[in-house]
Amino acid sequence: MFDSGLGGLTVVHAIMKRLPSEDIVYLGDTARVPYGTRSAQTVLNYARACARKLCEHDIKLLCVACNTVSAVALDMLSVELDLPVLGVIGPGAAAGAKASEQGRVGVIATAGTVASGAYPRAVASISTRAETFMEAAPLLVPLVEEGWTQGEVPRLAVRRYLTPLVAQGIDTLVLGCTHYPLLHEIIASELAALRGHAIPIVDSAQATAAELAQLLHERGLATDRTAAGALRILVTDMPGKFSEVAARFLGQSVEGLDVTAIDL
Amino acid sequence: MFDSGLGGLTVVHAIMKRLPSEDIVYLGDTARVPYGTRSAQTVLNYARACARKLCEHDIKLLCVACNTVSAVALDMLSVELDLPVLGVIGPGAAAGAKASEQGRVGVIATAGTVASGAYPRAVASISTRAETFMEAAPLLVPLVEEGWTQGEVPRLAVRRYLTPLVAQGIDTLVLGCTHYPLLHEIIASELAALRGHAIPIVDSAQATAAELAQLLHERGLATDRTAAGALRILVTDMPGKFSEVAARFLGQSVEGLDVTAIDL
Repeated sequence: MFDSGLGGLTVVHAIMKRLPSEDIVYLGDTARVPYGTRSAQTVLNYARACARKLCEHDIKLLCVACNTVSAVALDMLSVELDLPVLGVIGPGAAAGAKASEQGRVGVIATAGTVASGAYPRAVASISTRAETFMEAAPLLVPLVEEGWTQGEVPRLAVRRYLTPLVAQGIDTLVLGCTHYPLLHEIIASELAALRGHAIPIVDSAQATAAELAQLLHERGLATDRTAAGALRILVTDMPGKFSEVAARFLGQSVEGLDVTAIDL
Repeated sequence: MFDSGLGGLTVVHAIMKRLPSEDIVYLGDTARVPYGTRSAQTVLNYARACARKLCEHDIKLLCVACNTVSAVALDMLSVELDLPVLGVIGPGAAAGAKASEQGRVGVIATAGTVASGAYPRAVASISTRAETFMEAAPLLVPLVEEGWTQGEVPRLAVRRYLTPLVAQGIDTLVLGCTHYPLLHEIIASELAALRGHAIPIVDSAQATAAELAQLLHERGLATDRTAAGALRILVTDMPGKFSEVAARFLGQSVEGLDVTAIDL
């Protein structure tokens, strides 16, 4: 699995819970995070470098645990690599379409993901009656990266991003970036306040873990081991800071984490 | 000149006003912005790549228009390059020490600049009686990059970063990142509200332009041309978006700007 930074750990966590015996190699490109504000061409270049590095680790499946990369580079990676490639947008869009009663699916995501049009395409391919409403929420990534997940600053930022979506009458919200689940509490309370009542919020990490389990099973790639799998983390910058945050995400001690700094 | 992104344009603007006949080549490393949250080693690598690219353009002096790079990589660049190298921290620290009556200089900057200790060293080398108080303000860069320079979100973020500095009794504030002048209005009003009265705010762009003019003069490198110099802009990503923002920074039309996308 790879992500631009630490957000993909929400997906790691979901997969570890569902598939505890699988080995995971996670690459966080912390030297070049965030991807969400960059051009498609630059994201393609970065994604190719990450995938190439992971292929050196004898992987059986590649999970792109980043919405921006999934939006922009999934097709290219599927063509170029000789193994199954799974992104987070397909599973997230499917879960959003399923959760929506009136077919008005709201999505908050990075500017890169919004510009790609990947969510409206994915939702439309699942449900012809569902409409997708997108809003770019670029400041939420730095807020999460800095740990500002409580208080007035994230609350006001979230309110500003959700207001136009609520005005369009969304009845489900998809968190279209792997960082956003860390703001779940604020997003849920602001959304309920703006909407007048609670509506479903879809975290694509859970949906992706379920689809990944099914894919491994279908292709006969699931391990038959019952012992716990290993988690190995590679980062391109700041291994110390990453370890701390990763431990918080995964509920492990920092000492138990295998984090290595690499160059791309 | 180079910077991690668009912040250095505040320095370009100051230099163009003071030295209108000099040619400027500006490189913004927009594919890897921001530098301020990265490790020193990564900033060194990125700075070396930017400097190497600019040396292909037959420059006579290198101005590092980025506080994080000035803090971490100025010595290395001065040793490795065969031309004068000027950063923004020396001029900003000198102007701050000079503006401070009681010698209590506050600095807001990126995490990388704070961790380097470059400002306290620079202030101490200028005035033995002056003390420096630092506060990392990492969210201000994404706020400026997204154009959120007005309203409650930047105001609350600025207040949170300034509160501990005011508690330490600072009597001058240095804007230790080239992005921050775009938040000047909010910073000035919050600082005055917290402090009870206005205190000097130092923008290192002006101080750097003055020191650069002196350096060119001393070394006999100043142009004797009187015609207007040319500005050429190189960016590693998003030339379109950069053009718009640059035009706003520099008060020129987008059509008049020479912006080229390059690879590093």
